Amino acid sequence: MASSGTTSIPRAVVEHMVREQVYGKLGVPLPPSAKAPNALVVNVSARHCHLTPQAVEALFGPGHELTPMKWLYQEGAYAAKETVTLIGPRSRVISNLRILGPCRDLNQVELAFTDAIALGFKIPVRMSGDIEGTPGCMLMGPNGYFQMDQGVIRAMPHVHMTPEDASYYGVEHKDIMKMRVHGPLATTFENIIVRVDPTFKLEVHIDTDEGNACGLGAGTFCELGKLGI
Amino acid sequence: MASSGTTSIPRAVVEHMVREQVYGKLGVPLPPSAKAPNALVVNVSARHCHLTPQAVEALFGPGHELTPMKWLYQEGAYAAKETVTLIGPRSRVISNLRILGPCRDLNQVELAFTDAIALGFKIPVRMSGDIEGTPGCMLMGPNGYFQMDQGVIRAMPHVHMTPEDASYYGVEHKDIMKMRVHGPLATTFENIIVRVDPTFKLEVHIDTDEGNACGLGAGTFCELGKLGI
Repeated sequence: MASSGTTSIPRAVVEHMVREQVYGKLGVPLPPSAKAPNALVVNVSARHCHLTPQAVEALFGPGHELTPMKWLYQEGAYAAKETVTLIGPRSRVISNLRILGPCRDLNQVELAFTDAIALGFKIPVRMSGDIEGTPGCMLMGPNGYFQMDQGVIRAMPHVHMTPEDASYYGVEHKDIMKMRVHGPLATTFENIIVRVDPTFKLEVHIDTDEGNACGLGAGTFCELGKLGI
Repeated sequence: MASSGTTSIPRAVVEHMVREQVYGKLGVPLPPSAKAPNALVVNVSARHCHLTPQAVEALFGPGHELTPMKWLYQEGAYAAKETVTLIGPRSRVISNLRILGPCRDLNQVELAFTDAIALGFKIPVRMSGDIEGTPGCMLMGPNGYFQMDQGVIRAMPHVHMTPEDASYYGVEHKDIMKMRVHGPLATTFENIIVRVDPTFKLEVHIDTDEGNACGLGAGTFCELGKLGI
């Protein structure tokens, strides 16, 4: 089950726990879809950026640090109170681009194709961090401008998982999985790249184009599987 | 193969003809994917509206008729020179909403979810013409306003086809098919509704959310199939 909530416990996680409890009390074996070690949480990432401490200081002033506004599902990740203005190559603008914290060691802007079209440029589909040769942009904050020579991407749809999850699904870091989103706009995304790390929580990230295409809502049933299944 | 071109012969149609010629000359049987009676053309429908002659007159003046600007792939259909301004329920606006001609006997606005979110309202997914109980909006033209009490929908992804195509694919009017879009954002849309009419040409219509989600381009390879195959 999917959840677009990010501040409290996602609906999918609560349902997963309830299912385990109920089947356990009934003494009935869990159905295959409920046997996964962790609930499948699916969230839509709206456009955002990741910044270095240097970029934050250039934009918000010397010594400035990001203020967490809303904690995200991945441990330690947050939407910051701070936003910037993105100025595209044709002087078109996106205001209130949210910064996600904590700071990273590279600057990266993640847009949907719809955003890129509105700004009037083409962006490549890349895995987070793989920004070599991608277009740049100008960012504007209350303290000044910060020029990014590269780093504007459309993030490839991806799934965060622990080694335990990877073992359950039979996949490895950078493998490709597919996710079926049920409902009146049923859609299967077939290029979900796997990112494995012991600190991760099982979560699929799709962007607003993908979320709007399939009409993902808080109660939408989603299934994750190996390619070819 | 998909084509987003609409004025000249779509790339998919040319390729389909070339393939038939080449295999014929070589005396080699056609591969299964090339055996369909017609090329599969896939086009992205950006937001647009269909209007009655009465609405056109209210918006553009008594006696006004739509002027074809660009012919679409379906016989007789065109993007009109005329556009209107759509005013949503929270006074938010979409300018330059294209009118598609010729006029129909009902007024209908087709938006992507991204458009509806920008306007600040929820719209249902409906088959074209099925507008009972859907939200309305206000349209503004150079001659005045026209109030639509209902008719704002997200069009269900659909495929136009002739009875001959339907027979080839083994489907009937209003059946559901799926379409696999290949490429780096490979996606299968599983709720493509079939519309059969002898005057139709084989063409899948998806909206901008779906087109952007899967990164559909002029050369993107697409396959249409029955559900469950």
